[in-house]
Amino acid sequence: MTRIQYQDCIEACLKCMNACNFSYVSSLKEYDLALLRDCIRMDRECADICAYAIQAMTRQSPFVAEICRLCADICEATARECGRYEQTHCRNCINACLECARACREISDAVAVMI
Amino acid sequence: MTRIQYQDCIEACLKCMNACNFSYVSSLKEYDLALLRDCIRMDRECADICAYAIQAMTRQSPFVAEICRLCADICEATARECGRYEQTHCRNCINACLECARACREISDAVAVMI
Amino acid sequence: MTRIQYQDCIEACLKCMNACNFSYVSSLKEYDLALLRDCIRMDRECADICAYAIQAMTRQSPFVAEICRLCADICEATARECGRYEQTHCRNCINACLECARACREISDAVAVMI
Amino acid sequence: MTRIQYQDCIEACLKCMNACNFSYVSSLKEYDLALLRDCIRMDRECADICAYAIQAMTRQSPFVAEICRLCADICEATARECGRYEQTHCRNCINACLECARACREISDAVAVMI
Repeated sequence: MTRIQYQDCIEACLKCMNACNFSYVSSLKEYDLALLRDCIRMDRECADICAYAIQAMTRQSPFVAEICRLCADICEATARECGRYEQTHCRNCINACLECARACREISDAVAVMI
Repeated sequence: MTRIQYQDCIEACLKCMNACNFSYVSSLKEYDLALLRDCIRMDRECADICAYAIQAMTRQSPFVAEICRLCADICEATARECGRYEQTHCRNCINACLECARACREISDAVAVMI
Repeated sequence: MTRIQYQDCIEACLKCMNACNFSYVSSLKEYDLALLRDCIRMDRECADICAYAIQAMTRQSPFVAEICRLCADICEATARECGRYEQTHCRNCINACLECARACREISDAVAVMI
Repeated sequence: MTRIQYQDCIEACLKCMNACNFSYVSSLKEYDLALLRDCIRMDRECADICAYAIQAMTRQSPFVAEICRLCADICEATARECGRYEQTHCRNCINACLECARACREISDAVAVMI
């Protein structure tokens, strides 16, 4: 597993962090903020684990498989949460989260096979 | 500057992160959530820099002075923001932020003198 | 699961981060640095996940169980790595890591039962 | 200052974090590890602040100017440290750090003007 092989997953995590943090900031500006409270919280959870996974991959952490698996779990939960809302920033989150989850599971499985 | 001398500041940062994140979670549960949108955002900003400063001190970062100065700035801004609200969790944040800011400036000044 | 119930685990994570980062800094100052390369790397991995777990608990993350389980896994691996060295800072790490792993598993199990 | 305007700086920070963490991992594998002890430490300091700055930009932090200024300072210090070594991974770090510092100062100055 070289740095280059992580590249797609790092990009997917960055896009997901971007989408989640954009949804977080956008939700906090909405008039009907109260409806979005769970979304706000999940967005930040997801952005945090994506940031953590990105750093872990760039430093070739010995725990990349475990960290990416956790990131995938949180991404999928965030996608489900975002699926409850009609806002564009929430809809955009769903795709970014699911794509990130897919990329993270690919890394996680690939690393697990190598050990 | 030994690890022991950082201890008080680490404790102040931990208390501040705790108060800010508690205020963040509590704000997201409030009925009048919309009034608290700026508070929610500042709480998380402050918790994040506190977490960063704690790690920096425990690893004796060469940039402790700069990191603690930034932490103090953000803590003071968060204290001002929390001062606009009557909620108990916001009032508790003010003290924790100001105490953390004070401890961070002490470290920052002490390290700067040594260099 | 209230904030208070997380307190012991937060303290254990802080002690572990402190011990690991102290071992990291101390290892980088050692004459026989080359012998400690794996230890240096694990120390930082462990400090990073401890910092992450602390923040997650203070913000009452919905993923506390999963994050603390990962933290426990990494703490145990770090304790095994540190067990290969005679340096005092490595020996001190072992206890801090094992104590943190124990506290994290307790939280992880307790949260899992509640869900 | 929109998300799109941060994009170049986020990319520069990601490249810098990548280069620094690659240098960190590579340094820890080197035979003459002892010569690289200061480099190892600076690499991780730089990677950490880059990760922090990336998240801050994606969440449109009210402290982007201050955080990016700190990131630039640490990048420049890391570039100076890496300039003392002949290893390819250190040479690659210099450029990535200086480019990141430049992008961070641009953001920092642009945001400061807007306030």
